[in-house]
Amino acid sequence: MKGLTSDYQLTLPAMLRRAEALYGPKEIVTRRPDKSFHRYTYADFVRRAKKLAVALGELGLEKSDRVATLAWNNHQHLEAYFGVPCAGLVLHTINPRLSADDLAYIIDHAGDRVLLIDETMVKLLASFRDRVDLDHIYVLSADGSAPEGLESYEELLSGADEERFEYPDFAEDDAAAMCYTSGTTGRPKGALYSHRAICLHSMASAMTDMLGIAERDVVMPIVPMFHVNAWGLPFTSTLVGAKQVLPGPHLDPESLLENLANEKVTITAGVPTIFFGILNKLDENPGAYQLSSLRAMIIGGSAAPEGMIRAFAERHGLHVLHAWGMTETTPLGSVCHVSSQLDDAPEDERYRVRAKQGIPGAFIEVRARGDEGFAAWDGESMGELEVRGPWVSGAYFNTEEGTDKFTEDGWFRTGDIVTIDENGYVEIQDRTKDLIKSGGEWISSVALENSLMSHDAVAEAAVIAVPEEQWGERPLGVVVLKEGAETTEEDLISHLAAHHPKWSLPDAIEFVDEIPHTATGKALKMALRERYKDYTPAER
Amino acid sequence: MKGLTSDYQLTLPAMLRRAEALYGPKEIVTRRPDKSFHRYTYADFVRRAKKLAVALGELGLEKSDRVATLAWNNHQHLEAYFGVPCAGLVLHTINPRLSADDLAYIIDHAGDRVLLIDETMVKLLASFRDRVDLDHIYVLSADGSAPEGLESYEELLSGADEERFEYPDFAEDDAAAMCYTSGTTGRPKGALYSHRAICLHSMASAMTDMLGIAERDVVMPIVPMFHVNAWGLPFTSTLVGAKQVLPGPHLDPESLLENLANEKVTITAGVPTIFFGILNKLDENPGAYQLSSLRAMIIGGSAAPEGMIRAFAERHGLHVLHAWGMTETTPLGSVCHVSSQLDDAPEDERYRVRAKQGIPGAFIEVRARGDEGFAAWDGESMGELEVRGPWVSGAYFNTEEGTDKFTEDGWFRTGDIVTIDENGYVEIQDRTKDLIKSGGEWISSVALENSLMSHDAVAEAAVIAVPEEQWGERPLGVVVLKEGAETTEEDLISHLAAHHPKWSLPDAIEFVDEIPHTATGKALKMALRERYKDYTPAER
Repeated sequence: MKGLTSDYQLTLPAMLRRAEALYGPKEIVTRRPDKSFHRYTYADFVRRAKKLAVALGELGLEKSDRVATLAWNNHQHLEAYFGVPCAGLVLHTINPRLSADDLAYIIDHAGDRVLLIDETMVKLLASFRDRVDLDHIYVLSADGSAPEGLESYEELLSGADEERFEYPDFAEDDAAAMCYTSGTTGRPKGALYSHRAICLHSMASAMTDMLGIAERDVVMPIVPMFHVNAWGLPFTSTLVGAKQVLPGPHLDPESLLENLANEKVTITAGVPTIFFGILNKLDENPGAYQLSSLRAMIIGGSAAPEGMIRAFAERHGLHVLHAWGMTETTPLGSVCHVSSQLDDAPEDERYRVRAKQGIPGAFIEVRARGDEGFAAWDGESMGELEVRGPWVSGAYFNTEEGTDKFTEDGWFRTGDIVTIDENGYVEIQDRTKDLIKSGGEWISSVALENSLMSHDAVAEAAVIAVPEEQWGERPLGVVVLKEGAETTEEDLISHLAAHHPKWSLPDAIEFVDEIPHTATGKALKMALRERYKDYTPAER
Repeated sequence: MKGLTSDYQLTLPAMLRRAEALYGPKEIVTRRPDKSFHRYTYADFVRRAKKLAVALGELGLEKSDRVATLAWNNHQHLEAYFGVPCAGLVLHTINPRLSADDLAYIIDHAGDRVLLIDETMVKLLASFRDRVDLDHIYVLSADGSAPEGLESYEELLSGADEERFEYPDFAEDDAAAMCYTSGTTGRPKGALYSHRAICLHSMASAMTDMLGIAERDVVMPIVPMFHVNAWGLPFTSTLVGAKQVLPGPHLDPESLLENLANEKVTITAGVPTIFFGILNKLDENPGAYQLSSLRAMIIGGSAAPEGMIRAFAERHGLHVLHAWGMTETTPLGSVCHVSSQLDDAPEDERYRVRAKQGIPGAFIEVRARGDEGFAAWDGESMGELEVRGPWVSGAYFNTEEGTDKFTEDGWFRTGDIVTIDENGYVEIQDRTKDLIKSGGEWISSVALENSLMSHDAVAEAAVIAVPEEQWGERPLGVVVLKEGAETTEEDLISHLAAHHPKWSLPDAIEFVDEIPHTATGKALKMALRERYKDYTPAER
């Protein structure tokens, strides 16, 4: 027997309608390329998102055609977040840091028909434009202008009548948005989000135990809107009517700190690299910025080291909220609040917990698959994290590649090697491909890297597996020293020995000037493994 | 094109599985009939809910058969909240305050096959048992015993092996639970909730801008679990792993205050009558109860007067959170947080706003239908509140009655006459049937009642329409005075004249000893209208 609840569908048009009805006077602030501020209201935003939907509707596109964006966090990009899906089209946000080859591949593979490009990124076009087939390219610019040969987004909007917009009734499982993974192996693959996935993800993000985003928050996503939809923050903020602060292209610590202080931001979010910069700036100028409104800095994308969490708290009274997710999880999977069960735990243990990736969100389920069945939830047994839930991908867009990432019983294989503790806290130990398997034991490269990076002299460290006859694989440390700092291989290995069993210690440390990075700022270990594939310590 | 998000279903089994995985050590406390406390953990609760599901599965019931409950808020009732739907059956919670006729009608109309009845309510059985056809009646008792001729719930559980429980995969639109309205007109009608409706309602309730219920909350629903599922609090609390405090049959202010203080309750919920009692007790013994943990008292069911909200805040530092909902809205529809846009408003205005029913929850939409189109959102224009959203009923169970409550475009007609202000705050002015239509103008009986009840001498007041030749209808005040208090009709009418236009003032006040009430404690105005249907002021 079916319930007799109405079949109301969870869609982005419903979310936009809510914003229009309830949050008209609330503010959205963008930092322009020239560092001045653009300010307007939700009412303005809704009007322009409607105009965009009307204008796109008049281009002769078909339902679910893709509209791509290459843009920073700004109000025009936000308009596309709603205007594109509310026109029945699919918003395809693209990472401009990808190679020209990948950009061309993604635009072609996604079948993008229209591209909205930031004025600051127009120079990228030359590298791929003749390799893709786009009907229109509109430039998002502060003054409404467009370089020769390109169309103006502002002109597109000014020609559209928002009165012609009618809120459409989509099925909630219709496609609304897509993001490609920036995988280090194989071609980028597309996650295709339904309206429902985005709506449920937004509700969950507003739950107190997730991010708790509310009307009275002021939300500044530093994480780019081309990086898994800025972790969904523009959608969540719009659902609850929070003031939004969009930093534009200015991701330097000083600009960000100015925004945080002047706009009284309550919650912000980004990758560890960004927050290292902010921490350094604060350390240099303690008290220079009035950040008393800031209730949480969400750090994700890669692990936030415990030392950073401590440093923000102890030196600046600022709270880091650690989170984990992936392109395939829309992206929020887990958030690390210290649960009430740990209220009486010693401070060190509480910090130790806060460095974990956290507890799965509502209706998100996790398990860790080891070599022999699922790993126990004991905080020690390692396995590959599998996840399922109402905003987890079930397939990739238009490819046979990656089908092995989805289990037959409906779970997504994340490629992360994790432990899960008795309270359900997930902690990433490694990526499956980075894990070092030595003599039948698993060695976490991440654990060794974190320890290396806690050494005063180390700026960055990567630990990779190198082939070795007797053990199969052995760990090798690759280290970039801080400017002017000095240390030795022996010193670093003895530093590690304090926290790690002897058999898991690297046999050697290589000092380098730079570690290569992926487009999202992670160490490109594949390149390191290639570089050191014939390496043996004996050769040194 | 469909999104490629997995088709994970939002069901109560998924919620129970989450509780089992993450919240095993958290506590659930019940106050037994003898006032002692029963304490166990989520792990115990899950084990017993599974046992119940297994035991019910062995009774030969069919999918979606109804299992009724007549019980107070206790851990056994909570087990039924999950054990019944997780067995593929429908949980039917019944209000024991209904008449024997209504009880018999509801049990028969719902097709209940099994009844779980509280030991304190067994005496009700005699009045309807021979009029209904039930396969089994199990008694929920503290010591596991059952009176002769009835079966024991504890024995039912002890015979079941929880290891035989397997989490089922239901479709999220399958029926999970039902509640009958205690309508004052016509027969009670059943709302039939899908798994999805309950799950989404729980997520929304955990959003910061709704109730923000979180793992570290301690939740005590005073509102009975037979009253629209205690406003969903047992489901929401279980979703997030909050400690639950269930007051059993002890709803007297002293017992409730003991629970609030001793269990360090952070959030509680009930109807105004309950909180009047609590307020009086606190006024009598200021400082006698340590309530510093209590962050919110959710008041709904009927309107919380502004005076009560003020009194709790100003005299006891306690925060009232006003909420509105109906059986047909699962039930939470709106919650009244003061939005940041009102931060600079004078205190009086902020209190005025807090006495409204609040802003609709995520994905809940409201509109007010007047005599001529929809009322403007100006805080003055009145209309009948219509509501739609993912946990709003689309039909009643197994009846043609009430189909006129659902509009063709998918909205539910609440029967509440409201204003909506420019910020989206809904304020109930009246019930459609209680509204006084005088000379083409609408007069809110509720507004007049609230003003009457703000008079020092008045204990309770009802204002009803009486037929009148010239104006169609005119308002009549019916007043119960406080013990020992004295006043006059003239005094009360001049008290009203300070806040209401002259044409809307009652032509007369009748002083009575008692006002009749519905099963949920509301003034039974239908009976008053019947009593005074031939009344004219001139006759006095």
